[in-house]
Amino acid sequence: MPSSRSTRRWEDLEVVARNGLLDRRAFFKGGAAFAAAITGYTLSDSAAAQQLPDAPWSAAAGSLLTPYGAPSQFENGVARTLSNPKGEPRTQHARTPHHLINGTFTPNGLHFIISHSGNPDIDPEKHRLVIHGLVRQPLVFTLDALMRYPMVSRMAFVECGGNGAPLFSKEPIDATVQALHGLVSCAEWTGVMLSTLLEETGIDPKAKWLIAEGADSLALSRSVPMTKALDDAMIALYQNGERLMPGNGYPMRLLLPGWEGNMNVKWLRRIKLVETPAMSYYEARTYAPILPSGKAYQFYFLQEVKSFITHPSPGLKLSGPGFYEISGLAYSANGRIAKVMVSADGGKSWTQAALQAPVLPKAFARFRVPWRWDGGPAVLQSRAWDEAGNVQPTRAQIVAARGETKTVPNVMGFPNQHYNGPTSWGIERSGEVKHVYA
Amino acid sequence: MPSSRSTRRWEDLEVVARNGLLDRRAFFKGGAAFAAAITGYTLSDSAAAQQLPDAPWSAAAGSLLTPYGAPSQFENGVARTLSNPKGEPRTQHARTPHHLINGTFTPNGLHFIISHSGNPDIDPEKHRLVIHGLVRQPLVFTLDALMRYPMVSRMAFVECGGNGAPLFSKEPIDATVQALHGLVSCAEWTGVMLSTLLEETGIDPKAKWLIAEGADSLALSRSVPMTKALDDAMIALYQNGERLMPGNGYPMRLLLPGWEGNMNVKWLRRIKLVETPAMSYYEARTYAPILPSGKAYQFYFLQEVKSFITHPSPGLKLSGPGFYEISGLAYSANGRIAKVMVSADGGKSWTQAALQAPVLPKAFARFRVPWRWDGGPAVLQSRAWDEAGNVQPTRAQIVAARGETKTVPNVMGFPNQHYNGPTSWGIERSGEVKHVYA
Repeated sequence: MPSSRSTRRWEDLEVVARNGLLDRRAFFKGGAAFAAAITGYTLSDSAAAQQLPDAPWSAAAGSLLTPYGAPSQFENGVARTLSNPKGEPRTQHARTPHHLINGTFTPNGLHFIISHSGNPDIDPEKHRLVIHGLVRQPLVFTLDALMRYPMVSRMAFVECGGNGAPLFSKEPIDATVQALHGLVSCAEWTGVMLSTLLEETGIDPKAKWLIAEGADSLALSRSVPMTKALDDAMIALYQNGERLMPGNGYPMRLLLPGWEGNMNVKWLRRIKLVETPAMSYYEARTYAPILPSGKAYQFYFLQEVKSFITHPSPGLKLSGPGFYEISGLAYSANGRIAKVMVSADGGKSWTQAALQAPVLPKAFARFRVPWRWDGGPAVLQSRAWDEAGNVQPTRAQIVAARGETKTVPNVMGFPNQHYNGPTSWGIERSGEVKHVYA
Repeated sequence: MPSSRSTRRWEDLEVVARNGLLDRRAFFKGGAAFAAAITGYTLSDSAAAQQLPDAPWSAAAGSLLTPYGAPSQFENGVARTLSNPKGEPRTQHARTPHHLINGTFTPNGLHFIISHSGNPDIDPEKHRLVIHGLVRQPLVFTLDALMRYPMVSRMAFVECGGNGAPLFSKEPIDATVQALHGLVSCAEWTGVMLSTLLEETGIDPKAKWLIAEGADSLALSRSVPMTKALDDAMIALYQNGERLMPGNGYPMRLLLPGWEGNMNVKWLRRIKLVETPAMSYYEARTYAPILPSGKAYQFYFLQEVKSFITHPSPGLKLSGPGFYEISGLAYSANGRIAKVMVSADGGKSWTQAALQAPVLPKAFARFRVPWRWDGGPAVLQSRAWDEAGNVQPTRAQIVAARGETKTVPNVMGFPNQHYNGPTSWGIERSGEVKHVYA
């Protein structure tokens, strides 16, 4: 039977970087056939339809529709990992399984959470937001009042300053991308620009900072420069279309696109305009780690340009030589991702990845590059540039600047933060993927 | 205390269309103060912070984090409505509550579903996709095999051909936007382009259609022109980042961006390339309604340009005169939304709404326009244009073309479909919002 399209065999595609990286445009040109590489499963037309399983789900009516949907029972393993599942009196972390999801943002059920005293169960009718301090007119907002203001929607990532901290350790970590980078997520946030509300209250020129405070039992508070407040800060009310998740600040949170996650104060109840920062616990201690020089760095707000590969990654074993897609996430507090380069030989040779359009500022960019694994050892790595011209440092550079950790840091001992160097995945002949340094 | 910013009172903003519609750019210019219009709640600085409730959730540690998150208990009312909650042997519908959500797409728990025989509970390890018929080489794909192919992500709406069908009725409907337009949703879909798989199988030049078949007990099947299959058809594996919801086709569905929902075959198990369409039940009967002329229209694939206002809408009572944001959704199978006009006087005068960036093809566009309600009767209406130059017909035009329904159609009797005329909401002096014709 003749074919209407000329096809090229995938084995003939040009390798553009060592260890089998293919041109990101290879599949837009058309005609690259993978079959022998992937399915290994060809048969006659009459035999084809008989391959469909005689399955119970095709033999009887299925289940009832529900008012609110949940994933299939077969996806129960696609879950956040919990650092403190019994809720002992310390911080609880829930990490996003980036290796088990795909696309350009994080579904609400899997958005990462850090809660220092659990998730408060707030009645939105009783919740109030107060803006006071160095304003012309203090104001109190009910949720109903906020819902009447002009709204905006935007994609934004939120990342804990400690995300990736284990990568300062001297030895590679036997862990998944969820353990290493599960404290960053991305969502579409809809709400009222903080600048809109500050137009209402007026601003005393003496106000240089605001203190944002949550309604959790810790009354977690952080100081934010007024420049950010008047730039793109939002009082977020919706997350991916529906109201905020309880662990992400329901019924309202401060969103500071691209800035250190802890500053995006959840369960927001108070904004006080002031002249100088509060030097609160989280800014004076937790997020002010000591550098090798002996000095601490403080008010290090930006989550700088970063990327990591999600597919393949530890836990996703390769099933044999042949074609795979290498895919991952890149993001920057300084705007849009401009370019992501991918290496399969630990950084010696590189090729440029395709970026999924649209690429949005301060949001996840999904990158993808085709790869032909020859079955031998390989080391996968990505490196991102943002539109402001920043590039991820090498691991050696950022470890020199911030200091190496001898052991994996524990929750209370974050020795270093804001790791934005590369992450390397070693591919073994067995198809196993492991974290390595390269 | 002096203010650093000059403010204008919202009452002074220029009205650009009758009944209080304001310029969509009013709030980008800065300085419009709403306080008196919305909060009615100003006080001294010392009194402000005392307004925060002495709430139980601020007095003790909160709840445990969970592996998979769910909305707050206070959001239980944000739910799909079910047409057949006992699962009687007929179609089940679950409709999206567009008036209770916001943003530019639909969260997975609230995506609309139509299932004709319930949701099959498919084991993804046992599921197979077969492509055969007029191909060079029939192929069988496991899910693991599909996961290795190059993927793409895109926002796309899916809409039932019967969405909005009640609007063909002679009398206005006492119903919410959920009842009238709840059979359309939008999500980011990630998967493999069907054209990529057809490069693998090869295509016999005689193939002009494909028949897509689901693994549900109905084996629902629809015929799709090869032109669409080779344009932007996708085998979707992920929905908003996570694997497809069971009611949306887990573990894989055919996605035909912008085309009649029923054709986006869920639980996809088979694609057969053929010369002529199958004339299956849903294309020969259900989606081939009879026109006033006596002829049926068949293979009416496009969900054409449409818009409706979600806020305010029935069930969202206005709490008194003053400022509100009018907001809604627009979309078109013919590409991007180019413009949405909004009227507050039933279509006599109009102003252009702001569109939330980025505006993506064949996806929801969120439109917004500021509005100053004077407390009198008003009729809100929207009208959208797409980038191909199409505009929503008036209700009179589409009713003349398709025929009027004397009563609200029932599930088995869809007399008319593909309603894409306007929807009008009447505002009463009480603040109640009701569906009207205007």
